[in-house]
Amino acid sequence: MQLSDRITGINAGGSDGWGIYIKARDMERAGQKVIHLTIGEHDVRTDRTILDAMHAATLAGHTGYSFGSGSPGLRERIARRVSERTGVTTTPDNVLVVPGGQAGLFATHMAACDPGDRALFIDPYYATYPGTIRSVGARPVPVLARAERMFQPDAADIAAAAGDGAASLLINSPNNPTGVAYSQETMEGIARTCQDHDLWLISDEVYDTQLWHGRHITPRALPGMAERTLVIGSLSKSHAMTGSRIGWVVGPEEALEHMGHLATNTTYGVAGFVQEAASFALDQGEGFETTIAAPFRRRRDLVLRLLDGQNVVRPIPPDGTMYVMLDIRATGLSGEAFAEALLDKHHVAVMPGESFGKAAAGHLRVALTVDDAQLEEAMRLLLALAAERAG
Amino acid sequence: MQLSDRITGINAGGSDGWGIYIKARDMERAGQKVIHLTIGEHDVRTDRTILDAMHAATLAGHTGYSFGSGSPGLRERIARRVSERTGVTTTPDNVLVVPGGQAGLFATHMAACDPGDRALFIDPYYATYPGTIRSVGARPVPVLARAERMFQPDAADIAAAAGDGAASLLINSPNNPTGVAYSQETMEGIARTCQDHDLWLISDEVYDTQLWHGRHITPRALPGMAERTLVIGSLSKSHAMTGSRIGWVVGPEEALEHMGHLATNTTYGVAGFVQEAASFALDQGEGFETTIAAPFRRRRDLVLRLLDGQNVVRPIPPDGTMYVMLDIRATGLSGEAFAEALLDKHHVAVMPGESFGKAAAGHLRVALTVDDAQLEEAMRLLLALAAERAG
Repeated sequence: MQLSDRITGINAGGSDGWGIYIKARDMERAGQKVIHLTIGEHDVRTDRTILDAMHAATLAGHTGYSFGSGSPGLRERIARRVSERTGVTTTPDNVLVVPGGQAGLFATHMAACDPGDRALFIDPYYATYPGTIRSVGARPVPVLARAERMFQPDAADIAAAAGDGAASLLINSPNNPTGVAYSQETMEGIARTCQDHDLWLISDEVYDTQLWHGRHITPRALPGMAERTLVIGSLSKSHAMTGSRIGWVVGPEEALEHMGHLATNTTYGVAGFVQEAASFALDQGEGFETTIAAPFRRRRDLVLRLLDGQNVVRPIPPDGTMYVMLDIRATGLSGEAFAEALLDKHHVAVMPGESFGKAAAGHLRVALTVDDAQLEEAMRLLLALAAERAG
Repeated sequence: MQLSDRITGINAGGSDGWGIYIKARDMERAGQKVIHLTIGEHDVRTDRTILDAMHAATLAGHTGYSFGSGSPGLRERIARRVSERTGVTTTPDNVLVVPGGQAGLFATHMAACDPGDRALFIDPYYATYPGTIRSVGARPVPVLARAERMFQPDAADIAAAAGDGAASLLINSPNNPTGVAYSQETMEGIARTCQDHDLWLISDEVYDTQLWHGRHITPRALPGMAERTLVIGSLSKSHAMTGSRIGWVVGPEEALEHMGHLATNTTYGVAGFVQEAASFALDQGEGFETTIAAPFRRRRDLVLRLLDGQNVVRPIPPDGTMYVMLDIRATGLSGEAFAEALLDKHHVAVMPGESFGKAAAGHLRVALTVDDAQLEEAMRLLLALAAERAG
């Protein structure tokens, strides 16, 4: 039987970039010890108080159908948070609750793009971006954020890619995989370009609580941008709730109303007890979020210290997120070749930059998701290999 | 800003048919007592043992990312269930775990249809069917299952609607809203037509445990159909887990592999602790499911008894589901006019047949989702109104 072209085309790009991760898992299954610095999963589990709040919600009877767009209480709670943190007046009608940030990526591209439309995204990119765009039947167009610019995208490159008639631009700051947060200048350039080319701006801000200096900049707060910006938020990274699949989209009321209809037809809403847990989590305030982010800040500093006194491996300035990106081009190896050698020789798994697109070739993404001692050991092995190869 | 034509077109059909439901809710908010026989939600909550199993899974640490296609354990469990109950050999590679039956409806239509394709569905239909088809960018084509045929669809009607080049046919047996289960003859006609016209058959079987006589017939078990049938299952109705949003799609391995990629890009999988709860629920066996279904069987019998001795209101033979459909055409009123009058005069809310398409005009769908005493009271009021109007 013939499947749709759209669904068979989702992974048309070939490798999904997870080769090293899968190889490392296979080595572990075969009994070998591997230090995993690959996926963006906290080394702590969801906090017990949140899990108890969820259980209490189930026992209180919140086990039936919920509203497609999210429970009124959680939408109100998210609207208040967004208003407070960004200064942009946000009401529950500007909020859609979705089962995780990925569902937000999908819904926003459904809202912005018709089949065949060109949808821009910044390379290096999070693994699902091109597949998400292909899933809605649009055509993914990468815009390279170059290593020479410390992975800050250039407005002129975006404008050139937008040309005539592109529908949307997807950005992510603080950025996975690079750890870079876009500067005010970068964001203003992006905003101007979106207005000049009439693009929807889809802003994936799921790392907004993992920022190591300054304040998080959301492009929705820039002049003229609230009407064309769709922001994706999530509790996955901020509250160590990756497995609960809960997040939101914030944007113009009309767009959100239609995305609510889409939610009815794609998932029929999010489990009410998970929404109650999310409300409880958000009520814990910024202190809780700082605690969840603290290990990544500490390990980021640890990695920078370990890199001191050598110049073969150079860090991209890590502004935020649970990753540090390393430039290993001085070794003469590709990211893939280096990651492969590091895994084979030292049983340390890191993601090659090439897994995230062309712009991060010759780089490695190190996830700061193991305890400090293991991270230090892994970094020493990585630096030893780099010195040897650069030798 | 211009939204996509696809998303603004989802509710292009105008009214979503929930007018009576919303009016009844508003009356309750205003302090009036209303008997709700509208939505398909059990009057019992999810069983405590299932909720405790879910909590235990969270405490055991299953709060991180899960696999996009579902956890190996749950896929294995579902494959075993489907193999045992249908006689069709089913492996975990034939199974995708989705966040509820609605997500299965969406994913299967994504797999079967490209933008612009014609997608058939049987009218009367569950409320989201046309919107789901529009959400994937396909064109919904209703095929009327006529009241004179007791809402058993006619293969000739399907063939005529399929014409040349339709992509899929969506069926639902036992059927919401009619309560009818398709006969062996109906199913064989459907199967033949799908083969003749090269259609994907999307079979929504979420009421398969609510069948009051005979055995559930799945079209996937008919000769030549396993390769072109995508079955949607769910724990919502069978285990009173509507709010947990957990279900599955079963079908050919190649289709399921691609739907797994889609799952990665739409939801990034289902919460692991919900999957553990689902495994626990399925392990409770058929006895548990019979217990969940028992009130609907009992109330269905009660409704039939109450209809005895009059012939203004005639039941469609209720083979299964948590609904009974009533033919009220002898009153001279439309379903909408009757439902409106019943709500205004007697504060009893039922769904007009017109909410489910053209074929059920002049009918009412009564949900068997209140306790027996309330149901009996509501039915007496309904019958009194019908007798009065039939004069």
